[in-house]
Amino acid sequence: MQDNYGNLISSLAETNEKRIAMLVLDGLGDTDNNGKGTALQIAHTPNLDKFAGKAALGLHHPVMAGITPGSGPGHLGLFGYDPLIYQIGRGVLSALGIDFDLKKGDIAARLNFCTLDDDGIIKDRRAGRISTEKNRELVKKIRDNLQIKDVKVFIETESEHRAVLILRGEGLTDEAGDTDPQHTGSKPLDPTRSPYGESKTANIARQIFDQIREILKNEQPANMILSRGFACLPDWPTFGERFQLNPAAVAGYPMYRGMARLMGMKLFSEAKEPANILEDTLIALKDHDFVFAHFKDPDKKGEDGSIEEKVKVIESMDKALPALEKYMPDALIITGDHSTPAPMSAHSWHPVPLMIKTTKLRGPFEKKFDEYTAAKGELGIITAKEIMTLAMAHTGKIKKFGA
Amino acid sequence: MQDNYGNLISSLAETNEKRIAMLVLDGLGDTDNNGKGTALQIAHTPNLDKFAGKAALGLHHPVMAGITPGSGPGHLGLFGYDPLIYQIGRGVLSALGIDFDLKKGDIAARLNFCTLDDDGIIKDRRAGRISTEKNRELVKKIRDNLQIKDVKVFIETESEHRAVLILRGEGLTDEAGDTDPQHTGSKPLDPTRSPYGESKTANIARQIFDQIREILKNEQPANMILSRGFACLPDWPTFGERFQLNPAAVAGYPMYRGMARLMGMKLFSEAKEPANILEDTLIALKDHDFVFAHFKDPDKKGEDGSIEEKVKVIESMDKALPALEKYMPDALIITGDHSTPAPMSAHSWHPVPLMIKTTKLRGPFEKKFDEYTAAKGELGIITAKEIMTLAMAHTGKIKKFGA
Repeated sequence: MQDNYGNLISSLAETNEKRIAMLVLDGLGDTDNNGKGTALQIAHTPNLDKFAGKAALGLHHPVMAGITPGSGPGHLGLFGYDPLIYQIGRGVLSALGIDFDLKKGDIAARLNFCTLDDDGIIKDRRAGRISTEKNRELVKKIRDNLQIKDVKVFIETESEHRAVLILRGEGLTDEAGDTDPQHTGSKPLDPTRSPYGESKTANIARQIFDQIREILKNEQPANMILSRGFACLPDWPTFGERFQLNPAAVAGYPMYRGMARLMGMKLFSEAKEPANILEDTLIALKDHDFVFAHFKDPDKKGEDGSIEEKVKVIESMDKALPALEKYMPDALIITGDHSTPAPMSAHSWHPVPLMIKTTKLRGPFEKKFDEYTAAKGELGIITAKEIMTLAMAHTGKIKKFGA
Repeated sequence: MQDNYGNLISSLAETNEKRIAMLVLDGLGDTDNNGKGTALQIAHTPNLDKFAGKAALGLHHPVMAGITPGSGPGHLGLFGYDPLIYQIGRGVLSALGIDFDLKKGDIAARLNFCTLDDDGIIKDRRAGRISTEKNRELVKKIRDNLQIKDVKVFIETESEHRAVLILRGEGLTDEAGDTDPQHTGSKPLDPTRSPYGESKTANIARQIFDQIREILKNEQPANMILSRGFACLPDWPTFGERFQLNPAAVAGYPMYRGMARLMGMKLFSEAKEPANILEDTLIALKDHDFVFAHFKDPDKKGEDGSIEEKVKVIESMDKALPALEKYMPDALIITGDHSTPAPMSAHSWHPVPLMIKTTKLRGPFEKKFDEYTAAKGELGIITAKEIMTLAMAHTGKIKKFGA
């Protein structure tokens, strides 16, 4: 699929000594909590507000208006990759989510432990949501007994009934049928069914699932595994190639390390707490002209539906922010990968507040960072894929387009 | 052309019991009438204003900034189909405009009665704009005398010199040359000219126009017909397929019934007056989870250049609106398909005020619905194709994109 915008940025990007940091407060955006205001409005954030007074403010759609992104598309947008063009297969997302070091040519699929009845009919697609501990025990049993020639097979616990399958070897493709029919009352599907009959991946998948059926036959309730979303690591330009940057990631959670790895970023730190995240960001900026720093907690608290807790974790990041003033990046992006409004306890489509603290600003200058001041800011409502371009512009890293 | 956005929405759409109504006030947007304000600003609209106070406000570009849409592209955008990708052939638009029940495989072309001189040279491409009555009389004469084998031929009066040709039969394509050279002083063109020589449509068109020349030879001034825009009904996903909705249309005028039919919507009512439109919308919502309701008058009055009349018809709709409160849809979209500023007496490119009355709002909440409050609303300026996605998001009908 043609990516005119991405190709343009690639052709205009150039290297200099300036530094860009992108601090992602996961799930930052909020709705109005029945008139109490958004988390950013309620929170006491003197440092964010001070930064906002010297920043370009705006809102961004991670994908497009009305689309609620998962973490994958949300971060792709922030990294300047149009999530409508750069789509990640289900299996690859799962592998990224457990921090598996997926290589080019690997094939990944999402697995679910399930329950079959005596006739081999699916009774429960999630095997009663077995514990993660039981999952590990069963995965070990499968690994100890599975005998597959020619390709290397990885089976990895995700959590509860969820696991991931990775195949590594020559000549593998993503051509294999899901064995999960997505409903109960029928047998698992054959991965080699038409049009997948000739595919090596499908034939190996069939051997694997036939053996797993034998290995688990005396287990209850998890006596079988279903698969879906066979996918290969996409062959995309790396973030470093696209922007002529040498990027590093400070990310404490598997999914975000996975996304950084997918982009070809160096995994620099697994810090999870505000002070550590910012400290490691500053260290990484010595050798890297771009640092992606990820703070998970606002999303977690938003998903818990707790506006009080969401406010608290935003305040904890605010309190740590002055550390950055020791060595302020030339462009500091602070935003989220999507909104997670506490009243919804879920990701949402609402555009996300964004600041780019830098120079060469137009204004107006609002000394407050929230959804409403951002809406009135100089950036307006943009799509996430434009954020990196703006940061590149502000740091002189992008040439004029045309003579 | 690849429709990444449309494909994404299709893949994420899911059905639930929630209801969406889209009330289109045709030509709603306005300019400032030399300082008097826009029609929405001048009009006394307590009900629209009350609704706006509990709605997401914004403006939309039906196609893109600066593009003035006709009714076809204007409505395609509202229905979530990018008008740059989904283009309707001239002949099909004409057939839709007369409410002709076009079937898959049919071919339609726009016809003009014209005047030829004694040498067969076009003197007037519009035959002096004959009356619609005369048009009907000539169409009858053609129908009574035309003898074409193998395909069914429909010739239908549009108005004045305009008519529509529809061919129905096996093996027809849109490959036929326009016979209208688009200027006077030359003969009508041959529809079978290169590269159309082998096409069945072109050869039948040639037979038809040869016979019409004979049938009309003693008529004045309309002694011939010219054709352009041979087109087939496009093979697009229906609105119901795309959004997993069961849609109905309340539309009193042929063009809008035609657009609804093109989208695969059930034609539920031909109401034209506000009270009837809203009453039928409520009835349709019992069995349909989406209702498109069309109100033509603001566009008519705008095209007449009468701001007073445009204000009046908007007020008449406002007055009827409380009827909706009996059974408020879960998402109520109120907008136009384009602007028809009274000072311009024509469609224009100005973005169109939009409200989506629903829950899960961020605000700010303006208790007034006009072009200026909408510009400050939480939606910003979006493209029309995003409106349906937002309504789907607000009613929980669209899954998260990616994990």
